[in-house]
Amino acid sequence: MARRIWKDPVLSIPDLKSAPAGGVRDEIDPTYGRLAHFPAEKPLQMDSGSVLAPFTIAYQTYGMLNAEKSNAVLICHALTGDQHVANTHPITGKPGWWTNMVGPGRLIDTDRYYVICSNVIGGCMGSTGPSSINPQTGKPYGLSLPVITIGDMVRAQAMLVDHLGIDQLFCVAGGSMGGMQVLQWAAAYGDRVFSAMPIATGPRHSSQNIAFHEVGRQAIMADRDWRGGRYVEEGVKPQKGLAVARMAAHITYMSDAALHNKFGRRLQDRAEKDYSFDAEFQIESYLRHQGSTFVERFDANSYLYVTRAMDYFDLAADYGGALGNAFAGTACRFCVVSFTSDWLFPTAESRSVVHALNAGNASVSFVEIDTDKGHDAFLLDIPELFSITGGFLEAAARARGLG
Amino acid sequence: MARRIWKDPVLSIPDLKSAPAGGVRDEIDPTYGRLAHFPAEKPLQMDSGSVLAPFTIAYQTYGMLNAEKSNAVLICHALTGDQHVANTHPITGKPGWWTNMVGPGRLIDTDRYYVICSNVIGGCMGSTGPSSINPQTGKPYGLSLPVITIGDMVRAQAMLVDHLGIDQLFCVAGGSMGGMQVLQWAAAYGDRVFSAMPIATGPRHSSQNIAFHEVGRQAIMADRDWRGGRYVEEGVKPQKGLAVARMAAHITYMSDAALHNKFGRRLQDRAEKDYSFDAEFQIESYLRHQGSTFVERFDANSYLYVTRAMDYFDLAADYGGALGNAFAGTACRFCVVSFTSDWLFPTAESRSVVHALNAGNASVSFVEIDTDKGHDAFLLDIPELFSITGGFLEAAARARGLG
Repeated sequence: MARRIWKDPVLSIPDLKSAPAGGVRDEIDPTYGRLAHFPAEKPLQMDSGSVLAPFTIAYQTYGMLNAEKSNAVLICHALTGDQHVANTHPITGKPGWWTNMVGPGRLIDTDRYYVICSNVIGGCMGSTGPSSINPQTGKPYGLSLPVITIGDMVRAQAMLVDHLGIDQLFCVAGGSMGGMQVLQWAAAYGDRVFSAMPIATGPRHSSQNIAFHEVGRQAIMADRDWRGGRYVEEGVKPQKGLAVARMAAHITYMSDAALHNKFGRRLQDRAEKDYSFDAEFQIESYLRHQGSTFVERFDANSYLYVTRAMDYFDLAADYGGALGNAFAGTACRFCVVSFTSDWLFPTAESRSVVHALNAGNASVSFVEIDTDKGHDAFLLDIPELFSITGGFLEAAARARGLG
Repeated sequence: MARRIWKDPVLSIPDLKSAPAGGVRDEIDPTYGRLAHFPAEKPLQMDSGSVLAPFTIAYQTYGMLNAEKSNAVLICHALTGDQHVANTHPITGKPGWWTNMVGPGRLIDTDRYYVICSNVIGGCMGSTGPSSINPQTGKPYGLSLPVITIGDMVRAQAMLVDHLGIDQLFCVAGGSMGGMQVLQWAAAYGDRVFSAMPIATGPRHSSQNIAFHEVGRQAIMADRDWRGGRYVEEGVKPQKGLAVARMAAHITYMSDAALHNKFGRRLQDRAEKDYSFDAEFQIESYLRHQGSTFVERFDANSYLYVTRAMDYFDLAADYGGALGNAFAGTACRFCVVSFTSDWLFPTAESRSVVHALNAGNASVSFVEIDTDKGHDAFLLDIPELFSITGGFLEAAARARGLG
């Protein structure tokens, strides 16, 4: 399955060889998948007031777009995810990050739906980000890239969806920061989203969430190899700082109970304490491994930009202080899912979305799933998650006339 | 009040000028307070099997020891605390860390009790720690200091209490890591503790707790100025790494609700987002301040040692796998206190101590205080904390014949 993507027949939409002057140019890359290069004539207007042009979106598609163009599903990735949602990752060699949800015969069935997943603007897997070359200077952007928001990410995705000739997405789905994008899609492009599945997310980033992100950013900036963000052109990498940032964040993705069950106080490869600063406990060894493998696939400046985008997310504030305004009169169907042990995006955050949707008489299903797996549950094999989202999608598909 | 301590009449016990050969030598230091220098003939036997000799304990005392020597209260400090529990801190100029609990007319009344507080072994406020000079080499210990445990800290305290001529402490009290020491005292020296107040603590460090400590240690070790722990002799300081460690830890000391109430998503000194990596949010500014002030008073290697001591703490494991064994047959009276919003040492940890004490028919009061202040509540003005511990202490004082 992994390699199938590169020969996908959908590559003919749009035609790779026929970009008109001023049009979007398509490209295929062995690492990034599809690249849509948006020319200077099609700039990205950013929430900060800046303009990004030209810019590129890297994305993957799976399956076939039907003749009515009504079967497209957009998957939005989380902080450190990317477009490789359902194929083998070209760098790590690991399965796509949501293969238990997306693929042939899966719940989001690529034999039935046309699935799109794009790397966010600000990321490091082919979409324009801080390590991209600034055409004005010929050097990597570094911190000269304007700060990015969830709104910017979604605006860029909408331009991609336009480019693919799709008016309305059948579904937009994602967890964590992906769920923020789902909510942003529903708020900003309500008529272009038939159904939405925001999972393990919330309508804003909390003070505690910002705090953890700030620790990660300070860890990166404390690394002398960060060089004020100019490490790419100076030929170094702030890997130690980025690893520490990842370790701190990773704790927040798991529950106390999950850590206890998985590692407890068990020692790593030894029968007795040896009273040292080695990774004596399994949890230490696990965290160090998380840090060291992460730096092989992720860019430190992208980590700054993407965490910052999450911090700025506050949908109610963007809509006059009332979350209900964000979804006023929406015809979109929602399936909101939270997990009992998720302390990064506790159920109260999802519930505030549901209350806002209820107040506007929107169609909404809401389930809090009982699990001790913590925030990362949205990525795991949780049968209740599949049965709930599966039932929701099936009903939505019938309503949309997708047999 | 702050300076009173330096002229305390109790300084005559033991006499500063009359240490016999091979005896403990006393000294007064303007920063550290009292120093008890234990000679090579009085080594500290460590849990790791190592021996620390000679070694020094820095401590403060407040009030007068009565003729029966029955009114001594030992206060145990937390991870980043020190002996300056009730006097102005000589480095920061701030009040002692528990002045709302300890002082003249306070609940732990220095007009009534003889209060002792010592800097833990491994610390950086005068007790022997990694920045102390290793007499074998004439250079700072750095990482050549043996790894320290809570048991070692308490064993050293017991030697100090011996030196002060006190057989039994009226009370041992402390929160967080201080509470671990209280439990260790009750377990290892049950007949030397009349009453014990372990607050916001637990009988072991959880997997999640170890994880957060490991992040802090990795942040320090990632700082190029750490120099493998030899930064003191090389004339630098890993301040950025230590600041990141403090920031990460500080988040765990507060509850999500406390952060929300105190900072929310409010911006720092600006009306609008300016889309940057500055400390735009108040929580960011607060955390950065916590980090930058901490490095002025704390040593990075001590942070490694003292966090490691907490990680190793597992009282049940030390007593044959059953926590009840640790307190078997104890005559000590216990007052165990936890806080509803403390997610670092949740109430379940305190409850496991209470169950173990109940199983042994020990005298134990247990209260879970409803507050949103998180772990740090033990340091704050929480009226319920004062009323509960005050009532417990008063009853214990009567039972001990302290009018």
